[in-house]
Amino acid sequence: MAEIKHVTIIGVGLIGGSIGKALRKSGVKVSGVGRRQSSLKTALKVGAIDDAHFDCSESVPQSDLVILATPVGTFESYFRAIKPLLKRGAVVTDVGSTKGDVVRWARKVWRSGKDNPFIGSHPMCGNENKGSQYSDPALLSGALCIITPLANTPKAKLRRVVNFWKNLGMQTKQMTPAAHDLSVARVSHLPHLISTALVLLPTDNDLEVAATGFHDTTRLAGGDPEMWRDIITTNRKSKNKAIDELNTVSKKLRDLVSAGDEKAIENFLIKAKTRRDDVC
Amino acid sequence: MAEIKHVTIIGVGLIGGSIGKALRKSGVKVSGVGRRQSSLKTALKVGAIDDAHFDCSESVPQSDLVILATPVGTFESYFRAIKPLLKRGAVVTDVGSTKGDVVRWARKVWRSGKDNPFIGSHPMCGNENKGSQYSDPALLSGALCIITPLANTPKAKLRRVVNFWKNLGMQTKQMTPAAHDLSVARVSHLPHLISTALVLLPTDNDLEVAATGFHDTTRLAGGDPEMWRDIITTNRKSKNKAIDELNTVSKKLRDLVSAGDEKAIENFLIKAKTRRDDVC
Repeated sequence: MAEIKHVTIIGVGLIGGSIGKALRKSGVKVSGVGRRQSSLKTALKVGAIDDAHFDCSESVPQSDLVILATPVGTFESYFRAIKPLLKRGAVVTDVGSTKGDVVRWARKVWRSGKDNPFIGSHPMCGNENKGSQYSDPALLSGALCIITPLANTPKAKLRRVVNFWKNLGMQTKQMTPAAHDLSVARVSHLPHLISTALVLLPTDNDLEVAATGFHDTTRLAGGDPEMWRDIITTNRKSKNKAIDELNTVSKKLRDLVSAGDEKAIENFLIKAKTRRDDVC
Repeated sequence: MAEIKHVTIIGVGLIGGSIGKALRKSGVKVSGVGRRQSSLKTALKVGAIDDAHFDCSESVPQSDLVILATPVGTFESYFRAIKPLLKRGAVVTDVGSTKGDVVRWARKVWRSGKDNPFIGSHPMCGNENKGSQYSDPALLSGALCIITPLANTPKAKLRRVVNFWKNLGMQTKQMTPAAHDLSVARVSHLPHLISTALVLLPTDNDLEVAATGFHDTTRLAGGDPEMWRDIITTNRKSKNKAIDELNTVSKKLRDLVSAGDEKAIENFLIKAKTRRDDVC
């Protein structure tokens, strides 16, 4: 990571903390910015950051890379805070789960064009734990990071971001922000929403007979409500498209069940099992 | 297990084999009945049964307990096959995932009343593996077994079935067949159906960005299509009720997402997380 000597991570939670630990291991200096003293204290204690700050003014001017790892809804105001502080040539990226709104905010703050320092990233890793006390560079290693450059993103900046994630052991894949948002709506946000619906649907009595199948299917519902609120509100269009798609499938399923068409139901289940076995 | 010296297990797969192994450990003689020579051979080889048969005529007359562990759709014809062979006082139970149709078939074959030897059981355990080569008594241990006696089920027979599962290390809970079917529709069958829908919805491109959340939420879709076909077709009414309930929740969610009401979305997510954290 020759080009990157100092990184500011805004929001040092599970993912921010994991990145910080990995960076410090490879000799990069890491500053952490956060709103809560307790979070910053923990991040220092677990070795996720070298120094801690309540605002961006002290560390951002020294940083080659700034990473936003707070809930997506905070990004626009952080972009405005970072803008006057950013070192020439520095790059800004994030770990947010949606990209359309985020890229739009970056364009609004920096205008489109080559001077826009923002290149969106979405490292697809994490678990239901919250806070840097659970951070672990192994979460990143081998997982996929989607990068969403714009048409006019300078190649050199893009390369820097790609190499950054690769150096942390991640696979990378480039997509447009719109394609990213629709794909993750289908494979991540919709499963999350459905998982919350499935957990709220049974009565307390029903839950007494819940077993491993219920636990697995509803694991995502244990995620951080604040983070997911922002994911949902910043990817509304794709999410509603995915909900509509699911309703179409579930209507078809209901019709199959009502008709009691055993052969059609079995074929549907075989199709699903074949696909599941292929994918996972 | 003083009252039970010989058990016939019809269908020696993952669950049937796990029960067989546990019983043989505690000195009970176990006969296996199956349709496929290869399955019976495997069950003998892994020590799940003492002897193997293609039909019920050799072992059922000696058995104190007969357990149906085949797909639910086969039960009615097995009830008819067992009826003339059954020893006086012997009990019949099963491991099926639905109970309404099953109990109805048993009543049809044996008439209702004290002579009906069938008491439904639903050991809530298992995984995506199929076949007795994966059988393991540990699957049963600590898991819940729902028992669905009828109003006129003799107490002594019921006690025998309850003690049978307890001796295998299971927790037991009694429910009516109808209450069982609605509860499992909500906490098990609906999650399974939705998991198949979620796995079929994304495009191949989308699946390139699928991560652990997708894998967990769709694990159930890897289940045995034949078994699940029968679970679905024998619990149609409750399943459609559960699908309708989910559609109501998902419609509410879609409205919340469309309206972009951040506070309402966050409250919904907090409610789901609180419930998930309580349950699991």
